Amino acid sequence: MAVYTDINEQELASFLKEYSIGKPVSYRGIAEGVENSNFMLHTDQGRFILTLYEKRVAKNDLPFFLELMQHLSKKGISCPQPVVRNDGTMIGELAGRPAAIVTFLDGIWMRKPAAVHCREVGKGLAAMHLAGLDFSMQRKNSLSIDAWRPLWMKSRDRADELSQGITKDIDSELDYLEKHWNTDLPTGVIHADLFNDNVFFLNDKLSGFIDFYFACTDMLAYDLAICLNAWCFERDISYNLTKGQGMLKAYRSVRQLSDEEIAAIPLLARGAALRFFLTRLYDWFNTPANSLVVKKDPMEYLRKLYFFRDVKKPSEIGL
Amino acid sequence: MAVYTDINEQELASFLKEYSIGKPVSYRGIAEGVENSNFMLHTDQGRFILTLYEKRVAKNDLPFFLELMQHLSKKGISCPQPVVRNDGTMIGELAGRPAAIVTFLDGIWMRKPAAVHCREVGKGLAAMHLAGLDFSMQRKNSLSIDAWRPLWMKSRDRADELSQGITKDIDSELDYLEKHWNTDLPTGVIHADLFNDNVFFLNDKLSGFIDFYFACTDMLAYDLAICLNAWCFERDISYNLTKGQGMLKAYRSVRQLSDEEIAAIPLLARGAALRFFLTRLYDWFNTPANSLVVKKDPMEYLRKLYFFRDVKKPSEIGL
Repeated sequence: MAVYTDINEQELASFLKEYSIGKPVSYRGIAEGVENSNFMLHTDQGRFILTLYEKRVAKNDLPFFLELMQHLSKKGISCPQPVVRNDGTMIGELAGRPAAIVTFLDGIWMRKPAAVHCREVGKGLAAMHLAGLDFSMQRKNSLSIDAWRPLWMKSRDRADELSQGITKDIDSELDYLEKHWNTDLPTGVIHADLFNDNVFFLNDKLSGFIDFYFACTDMLAYDLAICLNAWCFERDISYNLTKGQGMLKAYRSVRQLSDEEIAAIPLLARGAALRFFLTRLYDWFNTPANSLVVKKDPMEYLRKLYFFRDVKKPSEIGL
Repeated sequence: MAVYTDINEQELASFLKEYSIGKPVSYRGIAEGVENSNFMLHTDQGRFILTLYEKRVAKNDLPFFLELMQHLSKKGISCPQPVVRNDGTMIGELAGRPAAIVTFLDGIWMRKPAAVHCREVGKGLAAMHLAGLDFSMQRKNSLSIDAWRPLWMKSRDRADELSQGITKDIDSELDYLEKHWNTDLPTGVIHADLFNDNVFFLNDKLSGFIDFYFACTDMLAYDLAICLNAWCFERDISYNLTKGQGMLKAYRSVRQLSDEEIAAIPLLARGAALRFFLTRLYDWFNTPANSLVVKKDPMEYLRKLYFFRDVKKPSEIGL
């Protein structure tokens, strides 16, 4: 949870002059998200989210994220829609940071998702992948396989502090993944961070996706592999096959998976587990104790990695 | 900023069954307030604030706070109005904590208040004091003069770490205040924590008071003395006489101050500065580094104390 940058009423009023959304009647910092400062903004014309982009989001990437949300919205995918400024652009500056306003999305994210929610995510993810196919912009995934070894080298010296034997395990895991990673699969726009808190529901129906700030161009099946990690495990890190099957089947009811994709998904899921393990491990050692962010346990993803490593064939995860 | 306790969708749904405010369509933690966990809750019937009372708020005090807000609302003072549950009560339990829902109040709190806002606060404070006169419940101020010495003793050993000479200064200040504190002034319900972030404005008009969780029965003039501390200094801790005069005059236009109150206010303001110095000092030494709360500098209030200590007559602060 975090609001890194507060804004005062004068900065806000001057920023809003560039928009045609009325006068502010309320703005409150939201205690969610770890990358940016988010405010719920009410004006006399409606409800919005105001985001100040903090240093972990590269300014040059913002047009990709915002154009993507606009593109997906137009295609009927429910996601926050960037509000266009009076000058036709979507990004301004507030308190010395790039800032944007998007429409507010009703919905509640599931702290305890059930199988029905996993099916909804599968279906919605496939629809988003299809809707993104004709999006004209590209963005490299800066946290894909070629980033993992350099990231690992930043934590490797201390990794065994967390649990004995990690260093050896990750070394060989990286060797294996770098050797077997198949990048010859259908690509397109992926969300790349579709965790529970980025999917809203109303009465068990998916009401929208949020937080596109890791979105990029990568293998579509990798996005699905991330969702298996994020949605289909129980708290004790047991894999819930009903959830996995439900998500995969729902995805395939909207977008077909090729044989190559099906064969690759266990390995992609293993890679996705490693990616989240590595970023959490880095944060574990580098988040200052007085930070406003709650550190997440990296071991959760190491245990998911072990699960996917032991998968012998796709049917074991519900394919 | 803080949300100490997250709640899941099932806990929320079950809690809301005790109310008649419709189904939740959104709830987001608010990154403000240091005592409780606050959520902005939207239902299909409106906007509300859901508060979980954390350990610093005594459960036995909750009826006083909530009944007071109800009383003041009914008297036309704009403040959050507790939503009455189906069983007629106003306090339930959520995630193991006492919890209540109040109506959402439009408005923006001033990070940079101007003289016009100080006048509004003076007028509004006096109106609240008058409206509270026939409130039947009582609550002792647990942070008034008799609490200061015990609180001081918890930090005294380390106080000089903050700035050399504090220990001696505060010792003699306490002696002086205990000797001269005049409690023989008109009492009633006071807010006791009317800082900038607890007063909302719309177009420079006061739109409401929030956060009544320090409210108590004490000298009305002491509440005004707190507001002088909270509103009438610039960032460099210079006293802005225009703001002070404006606030005091506006207050007196609604509620008269007796000669005794006028004579006492410089000393009350000195005591108020000490009270906030002491609680901030305690928090300074006792807030864990990994807390979600940003610690506030105690020295700000010591410097305000020095200012009020040097006041020779009430006219110097605008009376």
